[in-house]
Amino acid sequence: MSPFRGSVPLNDRWDHFDLHRADGVATVTLDRPDKLNALTFEAYADLRDLLLELPHRGDTRVLVLRGSGRGFCSGGDVDEIIGATLRMDPDDLLAFTRMTGEVVKAMRECPVPVIAGVHGIAAGAGSVLALAADFRVVARSARFAFLFTKVGLSGADMGAAYLLPRVVGLGHATRLLMLGDTIGAEEADRCGLVSELVEDDALDSAVAALAERLSGGPAFGYAQTKALLSRELDMNLSGSIELEAMTQALLMKSADYAEFHAAFTGKRRPEWKGR
Amino acid sequence: MSPFRGSVPLNDRWDHFDLHRADGVATVTLDRPDKLNALTFEAYADLRDLLLELPHRGDTRVLVLRGSGRGFCSGGDVDEIIGATLRMDPDDLLAFTRMTGEVVKAMRECPVPVIAGVHGIAAGAGSVLALAADFRVVARSARFAFLFTKVGLSGADMGAAYLLPRVVGLGHATRLLMLGDTIGAEEADRCGLVSELVEDDALDSAVAALAERLSGGPAFGYAQTKALLSRELDMNLSGSIELEAMTQALLMKSADYAEFHAAFTGKRRPEWKGR
Amino acid sequence: MSPFRGSVPLNDRWDHFDLHRADGVATVTLDRPDKLNALTFEAYADLRDLLLELPHRGDTRVLVLRGSGRGFCSGGDVDEIIGATLRMDPDDLLAFTRMTGEVVKAMRECPVPVIAGVHGIAAGAGSVLALAADFRVVARSARFAFLFTKVGLSGADMGAAYLLPRVVGLGHATRLLMLGDTIGAEEADRCGLVSELVEDDALDSAVAALAERLSGGPAFGYAQTKALLSRELDMNLSGSIELEAMTQALLMKSADYAEFHAAFTGKRRPEWKGR
Repeated sequence: MSPFRGSVPLNDRWDHFDLHRADGVATVTLDRPDKLNALTFEAYADLRDLLLELPHRGDTRVLVLRGSGRGFCSGGDVDEIIGATLRMDPDDLLAFTRMTGEVVKAMRECPVPVIAGVHGIAAGAGSVLALAADFRVVARSARFAFLFTKVGLSGADMGAAYLLPRVVGLGHATRLLMLGDTIGAEEADRCGLVSELVEDDALDSAVAALAERLSGGPAFGYAQTKALLSRELDMNLSGSIELEAMTQALLMKSADYAEFHAAFTGKRRPEWKGR
Repeated sequence: MSPFRGSVPLNDRWDHFDLHRADGVATVTLDRPDKLNALTFEAYADLRDLLLELPHRGDTRVLVLRGSGRGFCSGGDVDEIIGATLRMDPDDLLAFTRMTGEVVKAMRECPVPVIAGVHGIAAGAGSVLALAADFRVVARSARFAFLFTKVGLSGADMGAAYLLPRVVGLGHATRLLMLGDTIGAEEADRCGLVSELVEDDALDSAVAALAERLSGGPAFGYAQTKALLSRELDMNLSGSIELEAMTQALLMKSADYAEFHAAFTGKRRPEWKGR
Repeated sequence: MSPFRGSVPLNDRWDHFDLHRADGVATVTLDRPDKLNALTFEAYADLRDLLLELPHRGDTRVLVLRGSGRGFCSGGDVDEIIGATLRMDPDDLLAFTRMTGEVVKAMRECPVPVIAGVHGIAAGAGSVLALAADFRVVARSARFAFLFTKVGLSGADMGAAYLLPRVVGLGHATRLLMLGDTIGAEEADRCGLVSELVEDDALDSAVAALAERLSGGPAFGYAQTKALLSRELDMNLSGSIELEAMTQALLMKSADYAEFHAAFTGKRRPEWKGR
C-alpha cells in the first residue's frame, strides 16, 4: 500500500460492477448484460472512486476493463440516465456531467496502465471509456459509436473532443463525433483507434497476455511512460524534453535499471521489481 | 436571425462567388472556371465577410464549398495576386496575408459545419480551404497541392502548418508542406485528409446527402461538437473535460435532448428543432 | 557564414561521427558499424554541438543522418552508457539526459531540414533521432524499437513522448513507447512514421535525390516551413494564423518569391537563391 494514506480506508466492496483481482491485475467487468452493460449513476461513481484509489493500493499493476455478455458497454442508460437528467436542476446536471468527465480524467492521470478489451458495441460513454484506455484490444465484432449527437447532445462528451483528435486526427474525429455513426473494428483500426485487432475467440487470451506482460514488467517505467504521454499532450517541446530528462535521471537510480544491466551482463532475463 | 444585431445590415449580394441558399444549406461555388477558380483579393474578402455573418443569420445550418468547372480551386491567382503583391508595401502585404488567415480562422470558429466538396485540383489556398472545412467529401479525381514553397513562400500559409499536422500527423504534414507536391485522392485518404471518398459522378449526391443530414439534424449539438473540437485543440485535458461537462449540462436543458427522449419512448423518429 | 558571430570559431573537426559536406548537404554518418553505431557520450555531444552551429555556417542547406554497416543506430551503448550511468551521481545523470534531449531540441529548432536515411535497426536513442528528423526515408529492412522500458527506463526519452503522438497519434505512440517492441518498416509506414518507403538498394539514391532537391530549392521557404511546423505544435490557432501571416508577408519581400514570378511569366524554371 502507498505510504501516503491518512484516515480514509481503501474500499473493498464495489456494488456496481464486478471486480476481480489477481496477480497485480484488477479486472472490472461491467455486468448488466441484459442492458448491454448500460451505465448507471452509481456505476460512474464507482469507476471514478476505484480509479482514484487504485494507485494507492500498491497491489495493482494493470487495470482491465471488459463488458459481460454480448458487448462492451452501450453507454448511459436511456431510462435511468437520460430520463432522470430531464428532471434535474442545472447544478445537479453539472454535478453529473462533471462526474462522467472525472472518470476519464482519472483514467488518463492514473499511473496504472488501462486495457480495454472490446467486443460487440462500445457506444456513447462506452466508446469514450475505450478511448480513454491506454490499450484497446479489439475483437472483430467490436463496433464504436460516439453517438452523442444522436441523442441531441454535443459530440464532445467526457473529453472525447480532446482525446479523439489526438488519437485519430482531427478529420476522422470530426466525422465520428459530429455524425455519431457506428464504425466497425476494421475502420477503427484504419483510423488508429485499435492497439491490437484479434478474432473474437482470441480476445480473452490477448487481453490476458497483455495484462500479464504489463503486470510482470518494469512497472515504474510503464507508469512514467503513461504519465508523460498524458502530460506532454499539454506541454511544449522544450518543457517536455526537460521533463523527460528529469524522469530518466530519476529512473536511472531505480532498481529496475540496475537489474536490466545485471541481467544483460549476466546473460539472463531481468527480474523486474517494478520500482 | 440572431437577436444580437446592432446597426450593421446582413449582406445579400456577393459578387465574387456564386451563393445559393436552400433548406438551411448555403452553397458557395467558386466560379471562375476558366481560371480553375483562382482566388482574387475580393474573393478572399467575400469569404471572410460571409463566414463572419453566417452564424448571425439564423437561416443557415450548413455551408458547402464547391468549385465550378474542372476543379475545386487553384489558389491565389498568379497574375492578380502574386504579381500585385510584388508591388506592395509591407503593411499592405500583411493586411493581405492576415485577410487570408482570417478566412481560415472564421471557418474554424464558425459554429456552422462546413463541407468542402472537392473534385479536380485543390491547390495553394484552395487546399487550405479544403483543409479548414469540417468535412472533405472527395472525388477520385481530386488532387491536393500545398504548393506554397513552389512559389518561394513558406509552406505555412493561412494556418496550414497548424491544421495539417493535427489532421494527418507531423510526418505527412512536413512532407506535404515542405515539398508542396501534388497528391491524389487515395493518398490523401490514406493520410486521413478525406472524410468520404466517392466516385466523381457521385460527388454531387454525396455532398447533398451530407448537407441535408446536417441541416435536418440536431444543429445545436453539431455546433457544440464543432466548437469544442476546434477549441480543445488549444486546451489541456482538465480544462477540456470541464468545458465538456458545462456544455452537456447546458444541452441537457435543450429542446432536442427532450425531443430525443420523447421520440425514443414513443418509438418514433425525433423531430429536431436544432436548439 | 552568418553575419551574427562573435568570438566562437566554427568547428571543423568532429571526432565522433563521419561528416561529409558537399553541395550544401552535410551528411553525418554514425560509424561504429561493429557496435551497430551505438552512441557514446561524445557522439551525443558532437551531435548537439554540430546542430547548434549548423544554421550559422551558411553553407548547409540540408542535414542527412545515416548509419554505416548493417543498421542506422542501436542507441546508447549498454557498456559505455548504461554501465557508466549506474555509477553516476544525480547531477551528472541529469546533465547526461539533458544533453540527449538537447540533441532532439536542436534537430527540431534548427531551420535546416534533416533527413534520416534508415536501414536496419533504429533502436532507443537511434529511433528518437529518426523520429526527430523532418523526413524519414526508410528502407524495407528498417526496424524501429523505442525500447526504453526494456532497459527499465521510461518510454519517454529525449522527447519521444512529445513527438511520437504528434506523428502517429496517441494510440500507436502508447503501444510503441510503453511496450518498446520492434516494428518493421511496413508497420511504421502504416502508422505514419515513414516519409518515403524504398527498397534497400534504392535508399542511397532516394536520400540523395531528396537532399539534392532540398539543397537546390527555395531554402528560406523550406526553413520557414519547418520553423512554423515545429513552433505551431505549441501554439493556438489564432497565434498560428498571425505568425503565418507575418511569415508570408516577410517572404513576399524575398528574392525567391520575385524569382518565381519572373520565371513563371518568362516560362522558364526558377533559379532559387534560397533567400
